[in-house]
Amino acid sequence: MRILGIDPGSSVTGFGVVERCEGRLSHVAHGTVRMQSSLSMSQRLDHLYRTLTEVVGAHAPDTVAVETVFVAVSPRSALVLGQARGVILAALAAGGLPVNEYAPARIKRAVTGNGRATKQQVMTMVKRLLALDRPPSSDAADALAAAIAHANASRIEALAPAIAARRQPRRRARDAVFNVRRLR
Amino acid sequence: MRILGIDPGSSVTGFGVVERCEGRLSHVAHGTVRMQSSLSMSQRLDHLYRTLTEVVGAHAPDTVAVETVFVAVSPRSALVLGQARGVILAALAAGGLPVNEYAPARIKRAVTGNGRATKQQVMTMVKRLLALDRPPSSDAADALAAAIAHANASRIEALAPAIAARRQPRRRARDAVFNVRRLR
Repeated sequence: MRILGIDPGSSVTGFGVVERCEGRLSHVAHGTVRMQSSLSMSQRLDHLYRTLTEVVGAHAPDTVAVETVFVAVSPRSALVLGQARGVILAALAAGGLPVNEYAPARIKRAVTGNGRATKQQVMTMVKRLLALDRPPSSDAADALAAAIAHANASRIEALAPAIAARRQPRRRARDAVFNVRRLR
Repeated sequence: MRILGIDPGSSVTGFGVVERCEGRLSHVAHGTVRMQSSLSMSQRLDHLYRTLTEVVGAHAPDTVAVETVFVAVSPRSALVLGQARGVILAALAAGGLPVNEYAPARIKRAVTGNGRATKQQVMTMVKRLLALDRPPSSDAADALAAAIAHANASRIEALAPAIAARRQPRRRARDAVFNVRRLR
């Protein structure tokens, strides 16, 4: 399974592609899309749309993990960030890709074990987990971390029926005890 | 000159096309794009992108007037509105169209003479100015009003050099008086 991770930003959007094969994660690609200040806002957004479409075309991901927006910002910042985010979501839907959203804390926890990890810690752990020669930029590292978070979450989801089946007898036993107590 | 007016909204986006020919305004088309609640957010935004691309293709406008966003809302509402707005701006840039922005008060003043006009007043005046059989929906009326505001603004801009030339002698006379006073 190929996963495209995206960290949307009002000036820089990070992207990263990882592949999970037989339980092992490997790095495919990563990069950033910058909003060029020489362009008008609509041209910057068009550039973002086109670049993401190219990334999807070049790496053919099966699914996407997008970092959710931290909304405790001013309405104006939220509007500008929303513009970039809207374009990203539209480009992904145009490529027929399902979008999974992950909160920043969950992404940090997935790669460092700590939901409040620093940017540097995320960069270091992403480099280590994907066996990269050097750490990617912070925006690309966040995007790769989102993809890793989704790879882990979907592995757990795939294992869930087996885990649930193993747990069921225990739960039934607990329920039985509970019912006995209630009947007393 | 054909002008496409757009009123971006988080659930409904209005659009309207007007034509200015020999100083007269005429109606070409208008409509709305609704965010369908049965679709995911990314699919809704993709639908908005595609529909706007179709509108641009069908009516071939020369320029666009977009209503600016009223930002005194919550960060969450600003984010959702920003998503729709970003997709609209990207679709317009992809069509090679220049985007002109107008504040809601300026648009209302352009069609009713009053920057605080009600939605009903805007609908009534748009119907009258474009000689429509019946008033368009509020979202489409706002979009047509944005196009009318741009048609008026660009006519004034075209006349500006002539007006400036007529005013220049007077301004020079005033400057002369001012200089005389300063020299005393």
